[in-house]
Amino acid sequence: MLEKYHAPRLAAGLAASRTHDIAPFHVMELLARAQALEAAGRDIVHMEVGEPDFPTPEPIIRAGQAALAAGKTFYTPSLGLPELRQAIADFYRARYGVAVPATRIVVTAGASGALTLALACLAEPQSRWLLADPGYPCNRHFVRAFEGEAVGIPVGAENNFQITPAHVARYWDERTYGLITASPANPTGALLPAADIAALADAVRTRNGHFLVDEIYHGLSYETDCPTALAAGDDIWVVNSFSKYFQMTGWRLGWLVVPEPYLRAVEKLAQNLFIAASTPAQHAALAAFWPETIAILETRRAILRERRDYLAPALEKLGFKLAAKPQGAFYLWCDCGALTDDSFKFATQLLEDIGVAITPGLDFGKHQPERHVRFAYSTELDRLKEAVRRMEGYFR
Amino acid sequence: MLEKYHAPRLAAGLAASRTHDIAPFHVMELLARAQALEAAGRDIVHMEVGEPDFPTPEPIIRAGQAALAAGKTFYTPSLGLPELRQAIADFYRARYGVAVPATRIVVTAGASGALTLALACLAEPQSRWLLADPGYPCNRHFVRAFEGEAVGIPVGAENNFQITPAHVARYWDERTYGLITASPANPTGALLPAADIAALADAVRTRNGHFLVDEIYHGLSYETDCPTALAAGDDIWVVNSFSKYFQMTGWRLGWLVVPEPYLRAVEKLAQNLFIAASTPAQHAALAAFWPETIAILETRRAILRERRDYLAPALEKLGFKLAAKPQGAFYLWCDCGALTDDSFKFATQLLEDIGVAITPGLDFGKHQPERHVRFAYSTELDRLKEAVRRMEGYFR
Repeated sequence: MLEKYHAPRLAAGLAASRTHDIAPFHVMELLARAQALEAAGRDIVHMEVGEPDFPTPEPIIRAGQAALAAGKTFYTPSLGLPELRQAIADFYRARYGVAVPATRIVVTAGASGALTLALACLAEPQSRWLLADPGYPCNRHFVRAFEGEAVGIPVGAENNFQITPAHVARYWDERTYGLITASPANPTGALLPAADIAALADAVRTRNGHFLVDEIYHGLSYETDCPTALAAGDDIWVVNSFSKYFQMTGWRLGWLVVPEPYLRAVEKLAQNLFIAASTPAQHAALAAFWPETIAILETRRAILRERRDYLAPALEKLGFKLAAKPQGAFYLWCDCGALTDDSFKFATQLLEDIGVAITPGLDFGKHQPERHVRFAYSTELDRLKEAVRRMEGYFR
Repeated sequence: MLEKYHAPRLAAGLAASRTHDIAPFHVMELLARAQALEAAGRDIVHMEVGEPDFPTPEPIIRAGQAALAAGKTFYTPSLGLPELRQAIADFYRARYGVAVPATRIVVTAGASGALTLALACLAEPQSRWLLADPGYPCNRHFVRAFEGEAVGIPVGAENNFQITPAHVARYWDERTYGLITASPANPTGALLPAADIAALADAVRTRNGHFLVDEIYHGLSYETDCPTALAAGDDIWVVNSFSKYFQMTGWRLGWLVVPEPYLRAVEKLAQNLFIAASTPAQHAALAAFWPETIAILETRRAILRERRDYLAPALEKLGFKLAAKPQGAFYLWCDCGALTDDSFKFATQLLEDIGVAITPGLDFGKHQPERHVRFAYSTELDRLKEAVRRMEGYFR
């Protein structure tokens, strides 16, 4: 093994092997091209970006400014500001009716920081981790970063693009350490009902594995509330974030709920790998749970729902097929097989020819990427309508 | 290898092997005890903390508030805000006379984020990395996090606690990938002169290795300016931070200067592991380079110098020996062998008996920790004098 790793560096000064297995975001290149076209005067409808278009709500902004005025610029404890950890615990109790002690909540630099801590704590070299394909690409790269092996399980419409206990039984082997899932999922927007989460938890528990659930799109669902995996057992790891529902993307703040036996290891990792999360952001986030903020967020959720309710049938009329039930997040995962057999080329053409930017399936895995694209409705309704008008003309 | 890793998890649900090799900050326990004593009404002089006691300068605070008011709360590009990368490049030219293209500068969540990117990009499993013992403990833990092996080189007063080309020759073997050094160093405050940096760079280059220099205490030196390793070749990796000289610890902002051939790999890692650094922090940091800010920082540097000039001889009078030349950072690395043969017990006693909190050698490595302690002069002169008065009485 050593020879294998050592030789290439000596030969060419190359980066570590893991970097060859970590893919870039293809959508970034598309975004760069979209921006170049805009700079040249073209009007582009952006439906490619995985970021809400709303600025951070005003009460959070004001709390951040007040924290700065009060000189809150020093390190916090590594696990986070105690009052913020408590506020998150209170939120779980109030919104979900689930008791999670504040001691189990670790504040991180976004969900990214939470995934770093979880995988650094759990992934051994060569350990295998099951996750859905299509899925959020970074998840498999966090596994790879810590020398684990991500095993993509092809999921489709028959299970609403979610992994099932039958999948776990089929794919689990002696090297498998755990299952990583997401609800609502990216790119599909598919939700896991509470009973399905509990069944997955059981399937993993029986095998002595770790169960990690990405809940960063919680709060952004349009049919039913999202059940949290924390209700299915205190041995489950949950990743969440202030980015999406709370609309604090650029602040880089999230959290990890850690099973109690791992708290000491996670604390050591947090001390050494991060020192702490952003202090102004943590103070600002205290305002995220205020009733006046929640009122703003719920208004915005209704706006997202309105966009979804417009866009989903409009895309179907254009010849796209809604592959997954669009229950949450702000994505529509569409089968574009009736329109093209090459979704990457198709997305490029839509951008170049009519200025409509969407994300090709390629970014989300290896399972039929060529016949899927992701539409994000994180842009205003008028712009969505404009994109649909352009596509109508283009496909005619 | 697999069996070795796999068995313990199945037996006990344990955290990954790497977590057993990552030490906690012992000073944190000391700090917790100090805070408990304070809560019980005791007066504690804090000389244990590796954080400047100055709040972030006012112009940076105002720039952060203005960014928030302007809705700068969305993601920036993964490599950082282009204007901040340019401002850092301009700073290298203005302060050091060194030309570093902005394209090589990657903005990160503190030096921690920079070390993550560098080691994720370079460290293969089982690769060996040379670093100084004593040294900043996180550096060896970043190596371990990515499955490399940190090799502590015992350094002492004979080389001002810095690694030399002779050390490199002695410790380098076929598994060695690189050298990580720091100037000014923590816990010693020792500086590397430009000629020594160049000699180390040559020693590493000859061996086809990577040279990574931690410059996070740059700007905080009291005899001479700190030369940057970037002047010694464009194949050198440099880590820096807005935390120490710019006094933005809690904002979590730093940067990594990347040799050009590795930029693409680093960008992929940044996209996947971080998405981006804090947006409000990046906008605020633009004000870090303004002349009015630099004027504040230079006043504060003079204050730190005054503290050092008081504390160093006062400690010598008490029986401590200055182990390293106190040239930079805000630390005095002291040989306490004339006062105790157990620095950990000694530090505990100073805290419990006279309310003086310092850091025992244990946190910085395995080379004679029992006869060394670190004093941080990141507290006001009056408080340093109070600590010295208490120790005078205690040692009498």
